[in-house]
Amino acid sequence: MVVHFCRYPLTNYTFGTKDALYERDPSVPARFQRMREEFDKIGMRRSVEAVLLVHEHGLPHVLLLQLGTTFFKLPGGELDTEEDEVEGLKRLLTETLGRQDGVKQEWVIEDIIGNWWRPNFEPPQYPYIPSHITKPKEHKKLFLVQLGEKALFAVPKNYKLVAAPLFELYDNSQGYGPIISSLPQALCRFNFTYM
Amino acid sequence: MVVHFCRYPLTNYTFGTKDALYERDPSVPARFQRMREEFDKIGMRRSVEAVLLVHEHGLPHVLLLQLGTTFFKLPGGELDTEEDEVEGLKRLLTETLGRQDGVKQEWVIEDIIGNWWRPNFEPPQYPYIPSHITKPKEHKKLFLVQLGEKALFAVPKNYKLVAAPLFELYDNSQGYGPIISSLPQALCRFNFTYM
Repeated sequence: MVVHFCRYPLTNYTFGTKDALYERDPSVPARFQRMREEFDKIGMRRSVEAVLLVHEHGLPHVLLLQLGTTFFKLPGGELDTEEDEVEGLKRLLTETLGRQDGVKQEWVIEDIIGNWWRPNFEPPQYPYIPSHITKPKEHKKLFLVQLGEKALFAVPKNYKLVAAPLFELYDNSQGYGPIISSLPQALCRFNFTYM
Repeated sequence: MVVHFCRYPLTNYTFGTKDALYERDPSVPARFQRMREEFDKIGMRRSVEAVLLVHEHGLPHVLLLQLGTTFFKLPGGELDTEEDEVEGLKRLLTETLGRQDGVKQEWVIEDIIGNWWRPNFEPPQYPYIPSHITKPKEHKKLFLVQLGEKALFAVPKNYKLVAAPLFELYDNSQGYGPIISSLPQALCRFNFTYM
């Protein structure tokens, strides 16, 4: 019954930088416009995001990409048409955080953390399909990704990679949005083991 | 990777009543007083609670015990000293919802949904052990309990058993408290299958 999950201290990881990685849409209206156009052509958008955990002084922290001063997101993104979820998440993690010296990075996709749905071409997302919604516009799936004991990450230079402790995220939907701020509740089924 | 969990419609279940089941503490101050006294004698309180799911019209609902008009709780309670979590939860479910005609009820404890900790002899509980807390006062563990295809429950007559849809709980900490209101996020890793 008991799920064990081992994590390593943040100090085990090394962070470099690489070229900037820009969002595909230049603005929020453009984002929903493209979502609408693609929905008409290929249907519901499928997104995948990774929860990468480290610890500092025995407290679990989530790795977040910070853009500017106030916007945080999990690494991940949109799947291509018919792309496998796990393979797609590995591709997106390599694009976002992969090292650039040719050494192949291994991403171990451990567990499903949650599913969120966007009922309309609008910001709200829910951890269920709202009633009377037969065609959600986006399905976002979160995975727990097991980090190796040591690793080198290359962070796009327009982002910062930050390690946020669970108590910082908890009940802080204003600062991190509904998905990241509820990671403490989504993760509290695990019995963490610190290495 | 994909977790399937089957649930049956609410209409598969029959609800009777039985004698009232009173809380052990007559008031909130008495509750924390007893928690404090027991902590000094036997250490941290261990509690277990059950998430029982049914569906109505294909929407998942959580079974909640309602006391009065505004207080909701999950079935469960305090474990005895050294009592096994799963055995204790089965005992508490039988005490709370078990039928009284002598037919033995089977409770299938399926999965861990979350762990919550109470750092002080006070109402706040968190889905992690807050930093600098070495001796939490209560550890509450939530389990997903698989209901059989059909069942008869006997509800203590001072309670109502209600089935709350996820959208009613979501983001409604004011109405249901932090634990029950975050069940949608804790459960959204499951791919529900409706029977």
